[in-house]
Amino acid sequence: MMIRAKVLPFLFCLVVVAFGTKESDLKQCKHQCKVLQQIKEYQREKCYETCEKLYHGEKHEKEEEINSYEGREEGENNPYVFNEEHFITGIETEHGRIRVLLKFSERSKLLKGIENYRFAILEANPKTFVVPNHWDADAVLFVAQGRGTLSLVRKGKRNSFNIGRGDVIKVCAGTTAYLINRDDNEKLVIAKLLRPVSTPGQFQHFFGPGGRQNPESFYSAFSSEILEAALNTRKDRLQRLFGQPREGVIIRASEEQIRVMSQHEQGGIWPFGGESKGSVNIYKQRPLQSNQYGQFYQVDDSNYKQLEDLDISLNFANITEGGMLGPIYSSRATKIAVVVQGEGYFEMACPHLASESESGRHQGSKERETRIGLSYQKVRSKLKRGMVLVIPAGHPFVAVASTNQNLQIVGFNVNARNNEIVPLAGRNNVMSQLEREALELGFGLPAREVEQIFRSQPEEFFFQGPGGRQSGRAAA
Amino acid sequence: MMIRAKVLPFLFCLVVVAFGTKESDLKQCKHQCKVLQQIKEYQREKCYETCEKLYHGEKHEKEEEINSYEGREEGENNPYVFNEEHFITGIETEHGRIRVLLKFSERSKLLKGIENYRFAILEANPKTFVVPNHWDADAVLFVAQGRGTLSLVRKGKRNSFNIGRGDVIKVCAGTTAYLINRDDNEKLVIAKLLRPVSTPGQFQHFFGPGGRQNPESFYSAFSSEILEAALNTRKDRLQRLFGQPREGVIIRASEEQIRVMSQHEQGGIWPFGGESKGSVNIYKQRPLQSNQYGQFYQVDDSNYKQLEDLDISLNFANITEGGMLGPIYSSRATKIAVVVQGEGYFEMACPHLASESESGRHQGSKERETRIGLSYQKVRSKLKRGMVLVIPAGHPFVAVASTNQNLQIVGFNVNARNNEIVPLAGRNNVMSQLEREALELGFGLPAREVEQIFRSQPEEFFFQGPGGRQSGRAAA
Amino acid sequence: MMIRAKVLPFLFCLVVVAFGTKESDLKQCKHQCKVLQQIKEYQREKCYETCEKLYHGEKHEKEEEINSYEGREEGENNPYVFNEEHFITGIETEHGRIRVLLKFSERSKLLKGIENYRFAILEANPKTFVVPNHWDADAVLFVAQGRGTLSLVRKGKRNSFNIGRGDVIKVCAGTTAYLINRDDNEKLVIAKLLRPVSTPGQFQHFFGPGGRQNPESFYSAFSSEILEAALNTRKDRLQRLFGQPREGVIIRASEEQIRVMSQHEQGGIWPFGGESKGSVNIYKQRPLQSNQYGQFYQVDDSNYKQLEDLDISLNFANITEGGMLGPIYSSRATKIAVVVQGEGYFEMACPHLASESESGRHQGSKERETRIGLSYQKVRSKLKRGMVLVIPAGHPFVAVASTNQNLQIVGFNVNARNNEIVPLAGRNNVMSQLEREALELGFGLPAREVEQIFRSQPEEFFFQGPGGRQSGRAAA
Repeated sequence: MMIRAKVLPFLFCLVVVAFGTKESDLKQCKHQCKVLQQIKEYQREKCYETCEKLYHGEKHEKEEEINSYEGREEGENNPYVFNEEHFITGIETEHGRIRVLLKFSERSKLLKGIENYRFAILEANPKTFVVPNHWDADAVLFVAQGRGTLSLVRKGKRNSFNIGRGDVIKVCAGTTAYLINRDDNEKLVIAKLLRPVSTPGQFQHFFGPGGRQNPESFYSAFSSEILEAALNTRKDRLQRLFGQPREGVIIRASEEQIRVMSQHEQGGIWPFGGESKGSVNIYKQRPLQSNQYGQFYQVDDSNYKQLEDLDISLNFANITEGGMLGPIYSSRATKIAVVVQGEGYFEMACPHLASESESGRHQGSKERETRIGLSYQKVRSKLKRGMVLVIPAGHPFVAVASTNQNLQIVGFNVNARNNEIVPLAGRNNVMSQLEREALELGFGLPAREVEQIFRSQPEEFFFQGPGGRQSGRAAA
Repeated sequence: MMIRAKVLPFLFCLVVVAFGTKESDLKQCKHQCKVLQQIKEYQREKCYETCEKLYHGEKHEKEEEINSYEGREEGENNPYVFNEEHFITGIETEHGRIRVLLKFSERSKLLKGIENYRFAILEANPKTFVVPNHWDADAVLFVAQGRGTLSLVRKGKRNSFNIGRGDVIKVCAGTTAYLINRDDNEKLVIAKLLRPVSTPGQFQHFFGPGGRQNPESFYSAFSSEILEAALNTRKDRLQRLFGQPREGVIIRASEEQIRVMSQHEQGGIWPFGGESKGSVNIYKQRPLQSNQYGQFYQVDDSNYKQLEDLDISLNFANITEGGMLGPIYSSRATKIAVVVQGEGYFEMACPHLASESESGRHQGSKERETRIGLSYQKVRSKLKRGMVLVIPAGHPFVAVASTNQNLQIVGFNVNARNNEIVPLAGRNNVMSQLEREALELGFGLPAREVEQIFRSQPEEFFFQGPGGRQSGRAAA
Repeated sequence: MMIRAKVLPFLFCLVVVAFGTKESDLKQCKHQCKVLQQIKEYQREKCYETCEKLYHGEKHEKEEEINSYEGREEGENNPYVFNEEHFITGIETEHGRIRVLLKFSERSKLLKGIENYRFAILEANPKTFVVPNHWDADAVLFVAQGRGTLSLVRKGKRNSFNIGRGDVIKVCAGTTAYLINRDDNEKLVIAKLLRPVSTPGQFQHFFGPGGRQNPESFYSAFSSEILEAALNTRKDRLQRLFGQPREGVIIRASEEQIRVMSQHEQGGIWPFGGESKGSVNIYKQRPLQSNQYGQFYQVDDSNYKQLEDLDISLNFANITEGGMLGPIYSSRATKIAVVVQGEGYFEMACPHLASESESGRHQGSKERETRIGLSYQKVRSKLKRGMVLVIPAGHPFVAVASTNQNLQIVGFNVNARNNEIVPLAGRNNVMSQLEREALELGFGLPAREVEQIFRSQPEEFFFQGPGGRQSGRAAA
């Protein structure tokens, strides 16, 4: 609808206006929802919900609010956890799909700091081909599962290389990329972090190969006389090339096509920028942390130079069954993490949510955003494969594996330069760096007692989790 | 109106609320337009239009929408093309004018990525002087027409140099600049890209020389006792200096004044940062592309170091009459281009518009911004002198010259670092880099047939346009 | 209130809609204020005020507008001056307080360029301790008064150093910091500029040491089984550590505690990044400007390398009683300044405000934001200790000390790289760099007369102020 783009340039603005507090007002309020929806698309349901809440007393709301983070585990009202429902199916065929997570800032204003990043997951069935296309976004890819061959065309050169589980690949904006799943049985699953270069927080795929539709080739958007002149080719031939509907973006490839396109070295050589490799495997790096409860790997600009200008790094945490990671916090990076294997749960302390809900209790105060919190909201959620977490800088968190399988999480760290991971328990935890006097004054207990507690855990970073622990084993 | 600044800090927010669908509601809707206009300035006409559309059925709208981009050539509903009407006349005197293009993000949210840039055109009549002033914006100037002398005062030094058609000059924020048109007959026309340093997307001129008004001197904003003390000068003398109205920002200069101020070398030496020159001429660079159908020049930080920190480059395309440029796309730069000579038309494939209009058809869906497009909206517009185009990164486009004169376009590329121009037709086009299997799978035709088409055009970058082509000449 | 976060993601949107111009509409308008307040907190009073203005004629408003900047000195409607009332008391105890200035962009959209910076002031009474905590923001600290010891824990190392008046210290996001006021009598006052790393314009303190509340320890946000496992400690011991309420964030320390924690060198060595010092003292730098009317000092990345990545510098101006600084302007930095000592006043010329109020007079014009101003609003305010000023790039300003004491102002310059301070009066003023012809044309007076005025002031940067001046002493 044309009007909208003009009228509401870049904001999502719902205003509910009403003229009384009687039932008829509720009806009016809902009618406005209908009208507003015509100006700017808006989920009518949410609007109705707002109306209901506005007219059915505050007490009800308040209760809900108090329960919203602490009591629930589903992560529904927790802006840091994303489920299946928060993905938009961008492209779906019988052979695979590409799902894009909604804009972070649409979820919560607390995620405004990463609103220019988008997260997507590609899944391609065995023996399939993803049609060549480019995006108006820089992207970092992580192969979560399967074996494929990725081809990138940039600066007039093509580079094809075999990729597998754990590979990290940067793809610059505007690079023409295509992909095969060369495995006979396993899905190829790739997690992508994208940073749009044209419109903040928005990107699109541009398909050159394609036809009249599904996907349309961008060539067919041009007038036919333009194409004839540019390609120096007769209309009927172009009609044959661009005029047919296609079978989708992810399509079945023959054994022979797969075989020919798979003959490449793993990793490959990067033809676009000197001697660095096209990809790097995160599992082949020396772990930053490793013990019987887990391993922690990192890829950053020191072992994969291509990440330098994006200011992004990646972590992979393998938490052994029954083990836990943390509590830790990142000093300046915000982590966008996806569970690639296993189950468990996570907990995080968030002062921003705490201060919001506090000022919610003092309505009308303008301090809402700026109030300094002296308390924390516990954010807790079950974790299972495919869930996405956002862990902002400074926020202490833990992740706990279930007792029956390892929990594996890959994290894309935005704002990665000079990031420090700060341990809050175990060997070298930050509290053990404090002077005795500071501990004494800070905790209000004798320093010796505080020190004893912060020195009881001999492990570092990964620990035995609460489930795997005999309650009698606690040493201190 | 004071209230506005407080009430609606930085957004443009129209909300139309209505309580029924009868005629009386239309009246109410329009009344609201009047009220809203008082809160935040808003073109009443557009608001009325919105009302009309809201109350006169959806079918009508839908049709219009479908026609809005594809059918029209005027570029009226096309957010990428700007005409005379999109300029604001900032300063206008009988001797010249300075026109500023509206904020890009006011036109469309798709242009949010360049909202902190502004585009302006200065036109000064022969034998005129532009009064010294500084801006709170960094600026890159391109001399589109005429001959002048530019003086810049920075770090306590003045640098004056003669400028002419094709010169590119960077002026840092806060530099005091003035200008003469030293030609007897020709207008001096300068296109500027500005990047505000203080308030995003907003800049102002600060005139030191001036009087009580037209322009006011910023000195006269200070209390008279302040000025007396600072300049150590009696009130009556200051009154004489700053108390008179002036004749405007662009004023007539005498032959003698022009003669004295013109005695400088072309280009000049840059006194502010080592040995680099004050300006560089784009025509004097080695063209990146050149054949009988056109030439393509570039100025970037490699041949004009001053552009380095702005991450901006400039292109100049001279398309021979009857020729065409492209289809090409820029991998990461967004191009803000202005037609400096000639006529023709341009076409561009835009998936963002397509996905917007698609989700317009499925109202209420929250995917609007994030929907992955599998189709493209054709954006097409006539081009004539003075028109401004925005061509976002990743978007394939062509520009076609009319058959009777060359079409010349200068483009300011924002986000220029590591930008790659990707050819989609002609020699070295990106499709010719793909494997045979990829072409086969992508287009659904035998590879040989696809290859033949993408290899039929022997030229590179510039081609014979559709108008200049005998239809029988197509080779493939 | 949960709804709000969902419904109005990140904007402050008041819409007043009305359906007539009678008294009943005013009532309706006010009712809407009540409703809007429930959706998004909003000061009901301001909304009511808006209603009143909307319904009580325009003439009244207009008058107010015209008087709003020029006539008043209180700075109430002047978005560049901040008083006590614009601070939010984040933390307040009997032993001290931390006050945070509201978000700049909440004050005025003209301050959007610095909306991601926050300003705060910490005051700690003699012999007190500020409990260890980290922030999700980079910070630059300036010690405005007193003597303390600051401890920073980063990268597993602790660095403690004595600080005093004039010290500048950068604290990276995520660094655990604590502080004592080691003086027996004097308050310790620290001004901080913060740049949040997680959510733009928002930051929080994270206290590790703490208890159940006041401050809560972030440890206590975790489930008790998590803490037991991570710290390998029994529940009852943890309950004793984290389960007690505490006495506040700024607490009294014993003589002995102060003595032990004070034994450090001034400045210290920076253990986190090579040989640079932990802090630098601005008074010990060579002044950039100095005469009998004042001194001007600077700390930037050339004398304190830690400031490099923040693109921030600091200035300290000591204006002698009866003296004045300026008029000057900064070419690209926006200055956030706080008065640390003395009284006086400041004046600034602002074309943005002038153009806003102008377009207020031509309602409905869409040029509001982009209109090029040919006039300036005088912004004038008394200055006293604790007041904060924002001085945007390009804006000419002066600061005048009272005749009975020195005026001392510390300024944090955002966007500091390549900033140039441009003098508008006194020796080397920018006007004295212009050609005679340019002066003649610009001012419309004989060049000799203009030159004489701009050369009458023999001093540089600091001058005798208007109060200290015998009116007969003016030389020219």
